[in-house]
Amino acid sequence: MHASGDSLSGLNLEGLRVQLASFAAERGWEKFHTPRNLLLALVGEVGELSELFQWRGDEDARPGLPDWDDVAKTRVGDELADVLLYLIRLADACEIDLSQAVAAKLQKNATKYPVQKCFGSSAKYTTFQ
Amino acid sequence: MHASGDSLSGLNLEGLRVQLASFAAERGWEKFHTPRNLLLALVGEVGELSELFQWRGDEDARPGLPDWDDVAKTRVGDELADVLLYLIRLADACEIDLSQAVAAKLQKNATKYPVQKCFGSSAKYTTFQ
Amino acid sequence: MHASGDSLSGLNLEGLRVQLASFAAERGWEKFHTPRNLLLALVGEVGELSELFQWRGDEDARPGLPDWDDVAKTRVGDELADVLLYLIRLADACEIDLSQAVAAKLQKNATKYPVQKCFGSSAKYTTFQ
Amino acid sequence: MHASGDSLSGLNLEGLRVQLASFAAERGWEKFHTPRNLLLALVGEVGELSELFQWRGDEDARPGLPDWDDVAKTRVGDELADVLLYLIRLADACEIDLSQAVAAKLQKNATKYPVQKCFGSSAKYTTFQ
Repeated sequence: MHASGDSLSGLNLEGLRVQLASFAAERGWEKFHTPRNLLLALVGEVGELSELFQWRGDEDARPGLPDWDDVAKTRVGDELADVLLYLIRLADACEIDLSQAVAAKLQKNATKYPVQKCFGSSAKYTTFQ
Repeated sequence: MHASGDSLSGLNLEGLRVQLASFAAERGWEKFHTPRNLLLALVGEVGELSELFQWRGDEDARPGLPDWDDVAKTRVGDELADVLLYLIRLADACEIDLSQAVAAKLQKNATKYPVQKCFGSSAKYTTFQ
Repeated sequence: MHASGDSLSGLNLEGLRVQLASFAAERGWEKFHTPRNLLLALVGEVGELSELFQWRGDEDARPGLPDWDDVAKTRVGDELADVLLYLIRLADACEIDLSQAVAAKLQKNATKYPVQKCFGSSAKYTTFQ
Repeated sequence: MHASGDSLSGLNLEGLRVQLASFAAERGWEKFHTPRNLLLALVGEVGELSELFQWRGDEDARPGLPDWDDVAKTRVGDELADVLLYLIRLADACEIDLSQAVAAKLQKNATKYPVQKCFGSSAKYTTFQ
């Protein structure tokens, strides 16, 4: 399988969407890929991701995961990928353009979290209004 | 804010990663963006997504969500986007290349789910080995 | 291990709390049972529960799960139990009295959802105010 | 609303099940309370619980939550209660006796995690077999 997208700049959401749609269609999986089924599958993958972190304290899971061996980091990558793949399939099953939704959300976030008001704070945006 | 990526082909994971890293850095949020914090934030967004589907049966949440109005569909897009944004930040906080992890996972899936063996079946891949 | 509580009326939250605290203490697990660790473990179990339902449509997962065989129903019971056990441990790690919190919540729900106003509706309580 | 169970020893799962079944029946909510709807509602509540912990590091969320004020702790109690209430409703919708499932799970855990072998270790039980 050839991964879509430019290797210099990372994969592309639309390329992945098309690739995953073909993958499912070739296997006769479309009937299983309803919005709520994919949502529950996504929840399952988020659960698997959480299991990798559950007995690791913050100190042991510092940014970059410097104390994790390659096997453990590969597992994290696998679960992150699974979450993404189901997310893309879910958006597609809902006929929602994920790129467009993300672009719209980025604009909303820029408005909701003006740099001057929220610098260094983790407060919810409603605090800044 | 200018969304990265080619509008013809959808946003690009690496472009989004860079954009989100700047967004967080400008706001002094890096100290909050540890792997476990971002993971819990991701779980929170998956919860918000689930709330949109919880009282809708499969019949009411058919592929394409034909019975949902624009407001409801926009909410789904917003939550899908939030999940994606935290997922990208989480991969970045773990210093895991999400595009690479996805490409590797797609290859594993192609091996695990050969078309002839799993056509029309939702069984787990271990069944096919 | 003797399950706490009266077999006529089901297990008791406080009995389970004490029993689980001993179980963890005997195994030297208290150091792992911090609030955020237990929360992530809970998320992991909710993920396992979701996996049992992900490829089953509503029609196949009707109330009572009449089409599920004993093995599948036992698995559901196991995962429901795991969620409950981590939930009780999490409340305990937070030093929150779960019975008290539940009693308070039941009262709030009775106020938030008056029978006359919300009969037959799945709308959020804010609609009724 | 009178909370079931003995106040000396905490609420009782079976008493809660009966109480919640009446609460739903009185409001005509049974049609909404299918297994998958309740599962998604449970995921939603776990998400709300996670949001309370997402920007709190382990240091700030130490056992007992000593640095949290009463409002924040009450919120945690509310969300823990919501998770429990949907869990009990979900077991009931599946016609699974939660007390029995928990008692069976406690016995399995005692066998899977013998004190001598797993003392002070967070390893998965498969390691001990």
